[in-house]
Amino acid sequence: MPLKTNNPEKKTWLPVPINSDFPIQNIPFGVFLTRDDIITIGSRIGDYAIDLGALHQLGYFKDIPLTDDIFLQDTLNDFISDGKKTWRLVRNRISEIFDINNNELKNNEEHKNIVLFTMEEIEMQLPVQIGDYTDFYSSKEHATNVGKMFRDPANALLPNWLHIPVGYHGRSSSIVPSGTAVRRPMGQTLPAGEEQPIFGPSKLVDFELEMAFITTDANVLGEPIPVEEAENYIFGMVLFNDWSARDIQKWEYVPLGPFLAKNFASSISPWIVTLDALEPFRVASPEQTPTPLPYLQQTGKKGFDINLEVSIMPEGGKATTVTRSNFKYMYWTMAQQLAHHTINGCKVNSGDMMGSGTISGPTPDTYGSMLELTWRGEKPLTLEDGSTRKFIEDYDTVTITGYCKKDNVRIGFGEVSTKLLPVFQQKKK
Amino acid sequence: MPLKTNNPEKKTWLPVPINSDFPIQNIPFGVFLTRDDIITIGSRIGDYAIDLGALHQLGYFKDIPLTDDIFLQDTLNDFISDGKKTWRLVRNRISEIFDINNNELKNNEEHKNIVLFTMEEIEMQLPVQIGDYTDFYSSKEHATNVGKMFRDPANALLPNWLHIPVGYHGRSSSIVPSGTAVRRPMGQTLPAGEEQPIFGPSKLVDFELEMAFITTDANVLGEPIPVEEAENYIFGMVLFNDWSARDIQKWEYVPLGPFLAKNFASSISPWIVTLDALEPFRVASPEQTPTPLPYLQQTGKKGFDINLEVSIMPEGGKATTVTRSNFKYMYWTMAQQLAHHTINGCKVNSGDMMGSGTISGPTPDTYGSMLELTWRGEKPLTLEDGSTRKFIEDYDTVTITGYCKKDNVRIGFGEVSTKLLPVFQQKKK
Repeated sequence: MPLKTNNPEKKTWLPVPINSDFPIQNIPFGVFLTRDDIITIGSRIGDYAIDLGALHQLGYFKDIPLTDDIFLQDTLNDFISDGKKTWRLVRNRISEIFDINNNELKNNEEHKNIVLFTMEEIEMQLPVQIGDYTDFYSSKEHATNVGKMFRDPANALLPNWLHIPVGYHGRSSSIVPSGTAVRRPMGQTLPAGEEQPIFGPSKLVDFELEMAFITTDANVLGEPIPVEEAENYIFGMVLFNDWSARDIQKWEYVPLGPFLAKNFASSISPWIVTLDALEPFRVASPEQTPTPLPYLQQTGKKGFDINLEVSIMPEGGKATTVTRSNFKYMYWTMAQQLAHHTINGCKVNSGDMMGSGTISGPTPDTYGSMLELTWRGEKPLTLEDGSTRKFIEDYDTVTITGYCKKDNVRIGFGEVSTKLLPVFQQKKK
Repeated sequence: MPLKTNNPEKKTWLPVPINSDFPIQNIPFGVFLTRDDIITIGSRIGDYAIDLGALHQLGYFKDIPLTDDIFLQDTLNDFISDGKKTWRLVRNRISEIFDINNNELKNNEEHKNIVLFTMEEIEMQLPVQIGDYTDFYSSKEHATNVGKMFRDPANALLPNWLHIPVGYHGRSSSIVPSGTAVRRPMGQTLPAGEEQPIFGPSKLVDFELEMAFITTDANVLGEPIPVEEAENYIFGMVLFNDWSARDIQKWEYVPLGPFLAKNFASSISPWIVTLDALEPFRVASPEQTPTPLPYLQQTGKKGFDINLEVSIMPEGGKATTVTRSNFKYMYWTMAQQLAHHTINGCKVNSGDMMGSGTISGPTPDTYGSMLELTWRGEKPLTLEDGSTRKFIEDYDTVTITGYCKKDNVRIGFGEVSTKLLPVFQQKKK
């Protein structure tokens, strides 16, 4: 049964700019700080942020079983814990309140003043307290490119890659929302041909074009989530820039995987777009050969057609789009990732985040990192101002955007936009 | 200046059994559920648990700047956030209240009834909400053993090992306290000589003898913690069993490190022993050659002499000690681990946990895992009941204990004791 929130004919009484990522069909969730310095959970239509805490206090959700303070929190974790049925009831109701034919809020100026904010009046926060963050490595094109560069071009994929949605644990504490500048990391690297490592600023700071999904409480320790049930535990998705220091990574990552090369910062877009909102944009994911083991076998369309772009903007300059990719290229689906992650009984909680891994497409202009786009720096990119980039330079702003489009409905994610600052300087004592 | 809580002459009016891990010099912190089903923060002397929430409500901490509810919480995170000065004031005060010459609580039967519990009356909980968990790999003997077995016996240590306290991110959600049984994981493995992986129960479930330290809020994102300040941000230590499925690990871990082989469960002892309590047991850590890079260079004694033991007890049988090791063997110190972890600006929060990595000593009877003790299963161990073990079998209970001893004072950690259950069986529909 199609979700009524997805009806492409639906219109809202709020103004929605052409090509907005946030029509009434989107209804994402986020957390923001209001002009009165109050933190609340909210949604967004067009360029208006909706204070769900205030809406709830005014009685607009009175027929939905919600605790009084469910939206008056600084994270979405508790709301996400309420489960899929509640998410749907709330989105249905928001869709109803802002429907062009519904006058209950539209004609109540006092309530509108309390509930609605322009985007300039608010400051977006991290939407969830991320308990655990896992990053996958699920783009075949990306894994192949990395294998060609660093291992054997003829056998670029490692033997386990086609059998396992390979993943590793990342660092939750370093995840920041769009708009938070991050610092170039210091670290150990091994210069080419040397045996002794040196210490200094990373010279190869890179973005990774990724998306990530946010889970609800899914299981108890020791019990797996079957692949066909997995999507029920996915609340929604965000854009994700998995900042990487390639030179630090190269020296540190054998045998236990990436560590300081990744955990200096990771950036996400602040609005979580629900899986329900993405429902119309399902596509078949790439055919999997060999057939995965039974616990990873899925039916139906488990991919999503999400257009992705990355731009680099030098300080004071113009942004240049450096790649255009798509989430539909992912070889392993989110359902498979979650089923694999829990097949051993690993516990998944509300607010956990799982990254896709770098999303590279089949052609060089669709690669999801500077490492691949410039082929390890061998083919620098030229930006619109004529400057060239092998990797990301200090004061560059990297912005990822993403949206789906079908039947004249565009569901977008906004952006994750991050400036890279120079290394931290210890103050002289 | 020596801490007065460490005075070896100090005696308490509470009974302390001979060889107890918890004399008045220890004063660890934990979280427990009382007979009235109330969760509180507590400490322990001998076989008595002390309800710090109740002590505080009764006014015993009135001269220390503490919020009213600081101990009436289900985790220690906020108390740990209060910082080292506060931890010391509280431990000093507890040491004073329970001093043999102090009658204020000793002679107040009503208060004693409220504040004291026997260990049988309470149920220990996880002491902190672990935001991020990192596991290091800092025993040279362990890294060498693994290198000999799986790589090149002549070049067992990887090139980065002597320069970097190698570490990786683990899964916080699967960490459980002593006494919580864990399940044998299901997963993918590659049988020897085969090219296609199979799915089934792990056949090589192992313990890893580790210790872990718990941090306080240490920095802001982007700023490193200097090695000489690092210990100020370490609240205390616990015993840690980093359960591992060797066959799953072997197939999955290249190139991004261990994942499902580790995150099915990790077990910790419930009492956090403070670094202050461990102060008398400092020893020099092993000499480091080559000299580490300047950001890892430390002065003074940064190792700790902590005796460690692991036993295996079959269902209904007797426990057999299978190894005796010591924390002093660690090549990289906790201070170096924390300095390295933050050199790139990675944020460390209150309640984060960092594991040592398997603690193996120089001789085969000091190895910290079945993998090493049985040399990949080639030399099975014989238990007291005559049965043999290559790895851990269903219904075995693995127990790690640890203590320091000097000047007739024994400071111990209690135990982390965990039964391994068979794989989870999906209920038939």
